[in-house]
Order: sequence, then structure tokens, then C-alpha cells
Amino acid sequence: MTKILVLYHSNSGNTERMADLIAAGAKELEGAEVRHRNVACADASDLDWCEGIALGSPTNYGCVSWQMKQWWDQQPIENWGQMDGKIGCVFSSAGAWGGGQEWTCMALMSILINYGFLVFGLTDYSGVKFSAHYGAISAGAPDEERVQQACRRLGLRLSEWTATMIHGRKEAHPLKQAYERFEDLGK
Amino acid sequence: MTKILVLYHSNSGNTERMADLIAAGAKELEGAEVRHRNVACADASDLDWCEGIALGSPTNYGCVSWQMKQWWDQQPIENWGQMDGKIGCVFSSAGAWGGGQEWTCMALMSILINYGFLVFGLTDYSGVKFSAHYGAISAGAPDEERVQQACRRLGLRLSEWTATMIHGRKEAHPLKQAYERFEDLGK
Amino acid sequence: MTKILVLYHSNSGNTERMADLIAAGAKELEGAEVRHRNVACADASDLDWCEGIALGSPTNYGCVSWQMKQWWDQQPIENWGQMDGKIGCVFSSAGAWGGGQEWTCMALMSILINYGFLVFGLTDYSGVKFSAHYGAISAGAPDEERVQQACRRLGLRLSEWTATMIHGRKEAHPLKQAYERFEDLGK
Amino acid sequence: MTKILVLYHSNSGNTERMADLIAAGAKELEGAEVRHRNVACADASDLDWCEGIALGSPTNYGCVSWQMKQWWDQQPIENWGQMDGKIGCVFSSAGAWGGGQEWTCMALMSILINYGFLVFGLTDYSGVKFSAHYGAISAGAPDEERVQQACRRLGLRLSEWTATMIHGRKEAHPLKQAYERFEDLGK
Repeated sequence: MTKILVLYHSNSGNTERMADLIAAGAKELEGAEVRHRNVACADASDLDWCEGIALGSPTNYGCVSWQMKQWWDQQPIENWGQMDGKIGCVFSSAGAWGGGQEWTCMALMSILINYGFLVFGLTDYSGVKFSAHYGAISAGAPDEERVQQACRRLGLRLSEWTATMIHGRKEAHPLKQAYERFEDLGK
Repeated sequence: MTKILVLYHSNSGNTERMADLIAAGAKELEGAEVRHRNVACADASDLDWCEGIALGSPTNYGCVSWQMKQWWDQQPIENWGQMDGKIGCVFSSAGAWGGGQEWTCMALMSILINYGFLVFGLTDYSGVKFSAHYGAISAGAPDEERVQQACRRLGLRLSEWTATMIHGRKEAHPLKQAYERFEDLGK
Repeated sequence: MTKILVLYHSNSGNTERMADLIAAGAKELEGAEVRHRNVACADASDLDWCEGIALGSPTNYGCVSWQMKQWWDQQPIENWGQMDGKIGCVFSSAGAWGGGQEWTCMALMSILINYGFLVFGLTDYSGVKFSAHYGAISAGAPDEERVQQACRRLGLRLSEWTATMIHGRKEAHPLKQAYERFEDLGK
Repeated sequence: MTKILVLYHSNSGNTERMADLIAAGAKELEGAEVRHRNVACADASDLDWCEGIALGSPTNYGCVSWQMKQWWDQQPIENWGQMDGKIGCVFSSAGAWGGGQEWTCMALMSILINYGFLVFGLTDYSGVKFSAHYGAISAGAPDEERVQQACRRLGLRLSEWTATMIHGRKEAHPLKQAYERFEDLGK
């Protein structure tokens, strides 16, 4: 099984809805097992268990929420440096486009990189003028189809990379899939 | 006079259109004198002249374009550290929302901060679910009204801060203006 | 009076020692009044009171500590957007050089920019091969003289910019001071 | 063979010396084939060839040098999105500690992430109070042993991750190696 953890904090429910979509996308790959956890209900065993993670937080002041940061800051220090080589990606919802989602994605990536994850974004375009190059982002609720598709695609890609990189499943490589990656839409 | 430089590079013309809007916004403040320069036509004397700058680049790989970076890298080194205390802000256009505009804004800010500028973003919302918290951003051309308004507002704010901070014009302070800052729209 | 707030969180005491040095530097400017606050003892009235801020946090996972983030996330939302135009800078201590201090500085700046602050770094070099271009940084305790000098200089600069920009005290401008800015040391 | 590209630009020779050390580290893994290229001598075929990359630039204004950025901006656009799933890491030299190396590392990562690479940093400590959590950094020339060791380790790790992730060589996984990862030094 390819073990995927979707770990999020949400204030308004918007980031949680993104997490739902990402988890659904992650399950699209055969053999993916997905744990879908609010930080309030996750612990070190979930982090230990996973092979790939999608980490999401609301954008508050262009940065990760304190609740999500607290979760990481309180992880047992002896685990740090013992889990190198997992795969990671990020997502965030803000109140507005231009509201700092991509700065929050950077803060979330900084946590994952520090913990030893290999992180990625999507080259795909998931709709007209829409991408998740540095993680999936939303302004308010993920109601638009292109936003939802970015979330699902990010989740699927996480499963694909984790299966390819950790389990050596070469057939799971994104560049071998039949689906449209919509690249022309952004050009 | 409050001396404002709008300095940009543009590949497709989209960032140039943002620059036009920002320059127009900057001129809305009485007493503002605006130089509007493509990096191909600007030199060190423009940088020396200005008291406030709006710096814009296309988003290429989530970072400033090489043409804009070249302009800074080739500035006379003896000028560095001699111009501290000017005011700055940034803007960028990418092919898609989520395309790395905010990462590019960060790269542009890193240049300005290094050069001694004090940098700012907008707290304002410039339309439904739209802001320029870390600089003005666009996906493709700035055709939407809320994107245009973010550009104009960023330019105006640059003039306001420069007038307030450099010239001591207390009446130019943004919090004393009569216009709507649309803050409720993002909430 | 030029009102300066040094606001910090510290786990090991290292960031607190940086805060002490920054506060001492801030007091070097005549007319500066400095509040030196651990986030555990600061509230919204301190933020409202100040005209300039130095914001510091340990580097945990290359990002602001949850305690510092919590302080901001719990500020009364109605204050946001009502305090635009204050001056800000940042500082951080990590366990090692290369440990993510500058990423944490970026996260701290993202908070300040979002809140309406104008942020700056130092062009100064504060010792051989040492600067605080994006905020003051330390690896472990600030025991080295060049690290201490960077902290004091950052504090002094904060007072200088705040006095210059907010109070129109042109004689406080850094480029008019007699002290050495050590610029040649970094070249 | 595990195909590693060390791609760099250097002004003073300092980043080039880091590249030398990283290349030497990359070769420590059995089966690694390393191309060591200045951007002036590299082209799209090198990028196509590699499975892992270490990307390095001087820190100029806290950002990638224009020469390195130009190299990427001028890559054939039709190649973009066709090379997803390679492994990447970054390095930079500045004139001073605190000079923006880690901001430059972020800019370099933004390029790699955008191009479809999975990026990583080191959890290792490579000497007393020294790490390369977000890439290898130096102030001036990499003369100190701890800086050199960070470079070599980053190169080795790149080979290890590339061999593990791309070639499924489970014995190459960093956590299975006998060497000391020095983790206690940073605590």
C-alpha cells in the first residue's frame, strides 16, 4: 500500500474542504491508503506511518496557523531526522487571491523540508489560468471547478510520486498517465 | 514633489499593463511625480532620483525575470548602501493563479530590502476576494476590475507612504483618506 | 518620544538575549522609548502603542514558533488594517548556521507586512563576513561580537527609521550618522 | 548509473568551489556519474540527461544571479512539464553570514519546484552549529571544514536520494548508511 497522510488545520472549514478534495484525489491511485486527519486528532504515529504527506493550513498573516505549527513544534524531538525521505506537498486557503497563500505554502514547505521530506508542486494546469505550482491554493471556499481540480490533482500526484519513488512502481509515474495535464491552458 | 519610479520588465505586455495602472494610481496623489520605466530604458540615475519605487517582473519559474535581475546586478556597486530609506513595493504577472506570483513578489522584495528600501503590501481589499497583501498580482492580463483596482491602489499607496514618510506630509497618510478600503470584502 | 516595541518569544533564552541587545541598540537613539516584551506578557495595547517593532522568534522548522504565531492569530481582528504605517524588522536564533534563520525572518516579515508594517533589513556589515540584511540572526546564543553588534545595530536602525519616518526627525536618518557602517567588510 | 548534474554560476569563484565540493560528495556513492557544469557551458541536453541536480548561484541581492536565471528563462519552453520527477537541491555563497543565502536558496528551489523537481535539504549537522537544512551556504569562500563538509554531504545526499528514488536502490537510502550524521551537534 502507498500510505498517504492528509494533515490539515482549518478555521472556517475552507482548508478542510480542500483536504477532502486532496484526499479524494490521493485515493484515485490504485493501492493508495489515505489517512485524513485534522491536527487536533493526529499524532506522531500518523507521521511515522505515512510515506507521503499533504500538509494544509489556513493563511493567517501570510503564514501557517499557530495550531498547525504547534503540532509540529510539539513532535517528539527524538523522531526528527529519523524519517528522512518521505514525499510532501502543501495547500492553503486565504480570504482573497493575493492574500498570501503562496507565502503560506512556502512556510509549510519549510516545515516539511526541515523534517526531511522531498517536496514538490504541480506543473499541471487544472483549468483556465489556474495551477498549483507551489501547492494548491484557494480564496475562500474551494467552490470553483478549477480550484477543486487543482486539489484533486495534487492529491493524485502525491500518491503517484510516493508510489513511484518509495515503492518503485514505475507505472505510477505521472508522465506515463493517460489523463490530460492541461498544460496549454496556462500559456 | 514626491518622486515615484515604476520600474518593470515585461515579456508579454501583461506586467507592463500592470505598471501602467500602478503609475496611474501613483499620480492620484497631489504632488506625485512619476517616472514609468522599462528596465531596458532605465539607469542608475532613475534609482538615485526616486524616493519610492514599484518594482515589477513577470513570474518566470516563480522568480524574477533575468532581465530585471540583470538590471540590479549591474548597478554600480558603489551606490549600494548609499540610498537607504526609500519606500518600495512590488508586482508580478504569471500565466495562472497559483503560478508563483507571490514567490516572485518575495524575490522582488528581497532585492529591495537588500538595497535598503522599506517595503510594504496592502491591507486593503480591492474587490471581492481580492487583495495585494504582498504586492499586486495578476494571472495573464490585468483585465478584471479587481486586479486593476489592486494595481491602482498599490500605486496610490506608494505615493501616500512616500509622501508621508519622506516628506512628512501627514495629510497623505492612508488611514486619513476618505476612500473605501474595502476591508470587509475579504472576510 | 519614538515608541519602540521589541516583541519576542524564546525557548532556550537565545532569542531573548538577542532581544536584549536589540532593545539596548534601540535605546541608543535620543528620544527612543523602548518596551521589551515576551509574547507571554504583551497584548494588543503594546502593538497599538508602538510606532516601530522588532519581532523575534526561535527558528523551529525554518519558521516562526507557534507561541509567537498564536499571539498574532489571537489579536482582535477589528484592529487589523487600523495600524498601517508602522516600521518593522525581525530577528531569529537557530541551532546552527544554515538552520533556517533567514526563512524564519521571511515568515516574521510576512506577518508584519500583512499587518501593514513597512519592513527593512540592514545594509550594514557588523563585523567580518557578518550582516543582518534580512534581520538579525544567530546560531545558538549571540556570544560572538559580530552577532551582538548586528543585533544592536538593528535596534538602533529601527529607532532611526521610526524617528525619521514617523516623526520627521531628519537628523536621525542613518545616512547622516557619524558611526561606521562597516560596509567594506563584506566585500 | 545515477546521473547527477551540478549546475552553477559563480562570480568570485566561491560558488564554484562549493560546486567542486558538492560534485566530489556526489561521486562518493558507487554508481554515481557526475556532470559538473558552469551555466556558460551547459545546455538543455544536460538538464534532460540528469536524474538529480544540485543548483548553485551566488547570492546577489538575496536572490539568484541573472546569469543563472537567464539560463533557465531561455530553456526551450516545450521541455517544461516533460521532465517531472527528478530530484533537486541548492547552494549559494554570499559575502557574509546573514547576507541572504537562505533567501537565494528559496529562489533556486522555486525554479526547481516549478520545473517539476522534488527538492530536499539536509537534516544532518555537518559540524558544530552548522547545517544545510535548506541547501548548502557559505560566507565568502568555503574555507571552513564544516562548510566544506556540508557541501560534500549535500552532494552525497543528492546521489543517495536519486539512487533510492529513481533507481529503487534501497541500500542507498541515507538512513541505512554507516556514517555519522552529527545530529547532536546542533542541539
